[in-house]
Amino acid sequence: MRNNTSPVVTLTTDFGTEDAYVAAMKGVMLSINPRLNIVDLSHSIESQNIFQAAFVLGIACSYFPKGTIHLVVVDPGVGSSRRAILLITPQALFVAPDNGVLSFVLPEGGGDVEGRGLYEVRERELPRGLQAVSLTNPRFWRHPVSKTFHGRDIFAPVAAHLSLGVSPYDFGERISSIFAFDIPRPKLQPDGSLAGHILHIDRFGNLITSIKEKDLPTAPLSFNVGGRNIKGLSTHYAEGGKLLALIGSSGYLEIAARGKSAARLLKAKVGDSVLVFTSSPRSLSS
Amino acid sequence: MRNNTSPVVTLTTDFGTEDAYVAAMKGVMLSINPRLNIVDLSHSIESQNIFQAAFVLGIACSYFPKGTIHLVVVDPGVGSSRRAILLITPQALFVAPDNGVLSFVLPEGGGDVEGRGLYEVRERELPRGLQAVSLTNPRFWRHPVSKTFHGRDIFAPVAAHLSLGVSPYDFGERISSIFAFDIPRPKLQPDGSLAGHILHIDRFGNLITSIKEKDLPTAPLSFNVGGRNIKGLSTHYAEGGKLLALIGSSGYLEIAARGKSAARLLKAKVGDSVLVFTSSPRSLSS
Amino acid sequence: MRNNTSPVVTLTTDFGTEDAYVAAMKGVMLSINPRLNIVDLSHSIESQNIFQAAFVLGIACSYFPKGTIHLVVVDPGVGSSRRAILLITPQALFVAPDNGVLSFVLPEGGGDVEGRGLYEVRERELPRGLQAVSLTNPRFWRHPVSKTFHGRDIFAPVAAHLSLGVSPYDFGERISSIFAFDIPRPKLQPDGSLAGHILHIDRFGNLITSIKEKDLPTAPLSFNVGGRNIKGLSTHYAEGGKLLALIGSSGYLEIAARGKSAARLLKAKVGDSVLVFTSSPRSLSS
Repeated sequence: MRNNTSPVVTLTTDFGTEDAYVAAMKGVMLSINPRLNIVDLSHSIESQNIFQAAFVLGIACSYFPKGTIHLVVVDPGVGSSRRAILLITPQALFVAPDNGVLSFVLPEGGGDVEGRGLYEVRERELPRGLQAVSLTNPRFWRHPVSKTFHGRDIFAPVAAHLSLGVSPYDFGERISSIFAFDIPRPKLQPDGSLAGHILHIDRFGNLITSIKEKDLPTAPLSFNVGGRNIKGLSTHYAEGGKLLALIGSSGYLEIAARGKSAARLLKAKVGDSVLVFTSSPRSLSS
Repeated sequence: MRNNTSPVVTLTTDFGTEDAYVAAMKGVMLSINPRLNIVDLSHSIESQNIFQAAFVLGIACSYFPKGTIHLVVVDPGVGSSRRAILLITPQALFVAPDNGVLSFVLPEGGGDVEGRGLYEVRERELPRGLQAVSLTNPRFWRHPVSKTFHGRDIFAPVAAHLSLGVSPYDFGERISSIFAFDIPRPKLQPDGSLAGHILHIDRFGNLITSIKEKDLPTAPLSFNVGGRNIKGLSTHYAEGGKLLALIGSSGYLEIAARGKSAARLLKAKVGDSVLVFTSSPRSLSS
Repeated sequence: MRNNTSPVVTLTTDFGTEDAYVAAMKGVMLSINPRLNIVDLSHSIESQNIFQAAFVLGIACSYFPKGTIHLVVVDPGVGSSRRAILLITPQALFVAPDNGVLSFVLPEGGGDVEGRGLYEVRERELPRGLQAVSLTNPRFWRHPVSKTFHGRDIFAPVAAHLSLGVSPYDFGERISSIFAFDIPRPKLQPDGSLAGHILHIDRFGNLITSIKEKDLPTAPLSFNVGGRNIKGLSTHYAEGGKLLALIGSSGYLEIAARGKSAARLLKAKVGDSVLVFTSSPRSLSS
C-alpha cells in the first residue's frame, strides 16, 4: 500500500441496508479512522446463512490488495459463547465470529468427514502459515458492549484499530484452531462418474458446484443435475443449448441456462448433487 | 477530523438503487467537492415512509464522527410549500425536508399529545442547543431547480457546500421551529402495566418498541404482544424460547423470535401496542 | 480535478450485491489503483436488461465531474464476438461491452428507423466529437481472462489503468462506429396528437416517456396512457389528481400517480405508447 492511501476494509453482512446496522458499523469505524476506505462486499447474504457468506467471501477476497481487512458479521450466535476471531493469512486479515464463516478462506483440506453434512461445522487445526487470535482484549471494543450487536461493538472497532496499525496480537491471545465447514470434495463413484455438490446459486440462477476444472476427467464429458442431462462443456453463456455446463469465472464447474435461471428450471438448491460422466450418462432415476 | 480528511456525508433516501436518482445526487456532490467521503446510510427506506427514515437515521447518526453531514431525502411533498432545512446539533449537521424526518434526532420531548396518532407531525419549538436554517438562498442550489427532485438540486449541493466549510447561516434565515412526529412515550396503565408501541420492524423481523431499558419496572417481567405472552427478559437472540424479549443494541425493548421473524409470527406492524407486566399477565383478549 | 484527488469510477451492473461479482471488480481495481474513488451507480439493473442500463447511465452520467470514468457491465454476450470498447466524450470516459449500453450517452440522432423496434441495436457511425477504442490490448487485462467475466478481467483493469493516466489510445485500435439502440423520436400522428413511448419505469412506478419538454405542443394539453386520460400538466407529485402528467427531473414527460405506482395502476410496461393531445382527447379504444 502506498503511504498516503487508506487501507481497505470490506464489509460482509446479512444486515441488508434497510436498517441502521450497517451504517452504525461504518460510523463506528470512521470515528476511529476517518481515512478508512470502506468497501461493501455484500449486505445481501441471506439471514443467518453462514455458508453463503463463507462462499461469497472466499471468492471475493482473493481479488483485493494485499493487507486488506475483511470484516464479516453473519452471526446467529451473537451473545453466546462463540468466539470472536481475527485470522491472519499471507494475503489479508479477517475479523469475524468463529462460526465457519471463514471456511473458504482456508486452503481446502479437512474436507469430507464420513457421515457429516455439507453444513456441519467443526473445530479444525489451522494450517501452517495462518495465525489466529481470539478477540478478548476489551481495550479495543466499544463500551458498553451490547449482547446482540458485536458487529458494532467488537468487530468494527477491532477492524478500525487494525487499519491504524495496531498489531494483530494486541487484540487477544493466539489460538491454534478455528471452526470451519466440512466442504466435501468431489468423489469418484463406483460407476466411474464424479459426484459433486451445488455450493452456491448466484443472482442469475447459475449453479456453482464443488467441482473444479482440475477435478474434471478428460472429454467427452456429460453432466447430470436434477435428473437432466447436459452434453459437453461450453465456453461461455451465449454458447451451447438451453442448459449448459461451463467452467465459471472462479474455476468451478457451473450449470447455467441461456438467458434464464438454471436454478428455477431445475428446481435446484444448494447441497444438491451434480454428476460428471466421461461418456453419455446412463438414464438415471434420481 | 484531521486536516487532510474529507468530511463524511451520509445519504438516506427512499430512492432504491435501480434508478439514476442516488447516482445523480452523488455526481452533483462530487462535482462540488471531489474529496467528499459519501457513505450510504440507506436507500431502502419504504417509498415515502418518513417515519421509518426518521427512526433509522435517529439510531445510525449517533455513531458517526462529530461534524458528519447527514443528508436525508424522503420527500413526498417535494415541490409543495414544505420547507427545506438544515438542523445543527452539537454532534452533526442534517440537511432534509421539513416533514418530520428529523424527529428522532431531536431529544425526546414534546411527545404524547392527547388524541394524536403515532404518525402525526406538528411544528415544534427547537430545544435549547439546536439551531435550524430554512434553505432559501438560491446561491447554493443547482439551477434550474426541478419541482420534483430537490434532492439533486437543493439538498445535495447544500450538503456539498457545507462540506467545503460554508457557514450554515449562509444558506438561509434562521428558524426557531421544525416539524416533528409526536412519538408517544410509554404510559403506565390503570392495571399497572406499561404500554408502548412498535416503532420499527427490522430486516430480521425483530420488533423494536418505544420502551427503553430505563422505562422498565424491576423484574420479574412479562410481555404481551399480538395476544401472545413472553416471560422474562433474555440477554441475546440465541437464548430464550421461541419468542423472546430483550434490550436491543440501541437500548430499546425488542421482541424477537429464535431464528425466525417475530413480525411474521405475530403478524405485527409498526404502531401496534406492546404491554409490560411486572408479574404474570392476566389473560388478555386483545 | 484537484491534484491529490482520486478520479471517480462509477459502476453500473446487473450483478446485484448478493454474489462476489461486484466485489471482485472492486478488488481488481483497488489492486491496480488503491486511491480510486469507486461510486456504485447501480447494481440493480434487471438481469441482462441492456436498455434499462443504457437509460439509467444516460441520465446519471451527466451529473458527474468532468473526466469521470463510467464502467458498465451488463453483458449477456460475454465470451462471444461482441467487442469491448472505450468511448471518449468531452465529458467522460465509458468502458463497456459494445452492445447498445452506451446508447443514451450518444447525442440523440440516428433514431427512428422504420420497422425497427425499441429494443433493436445497430451499428452506428460515431458523431463528431466522440472517439472510441476497441479494447484489444491484452497488456491491460487480468490474466487468464475468463470467458464469462470480462467485467473482472478486462473492463475493471482497463478502468483502473485509465484512472492512473494511461492514454485511451493505448488500450487498442480506434474504431469509428459502435452499436446503439434506435430510440424512436416522438412522432406527430395524422390526428394531430403526438405519440411517444415509455422508456423507463422507476422505483416509484413513475412512467418516464420519450417525450421531452421541448417536444410538447402548447397548452391546453391532455394525455392518454393505457386507455386512461389525464388532463393538464402538473408541476409536482403532490399536485394534480390521482393520475398526473408532469415534466420530470430529467426533462422527460412523466406519468405518475399520487402516492401510488402509476405502472401498477395502468399495468404499463416499457415500450407502451403515450399520446399527447392539444385538446380533450377523443375517446380511444386502445
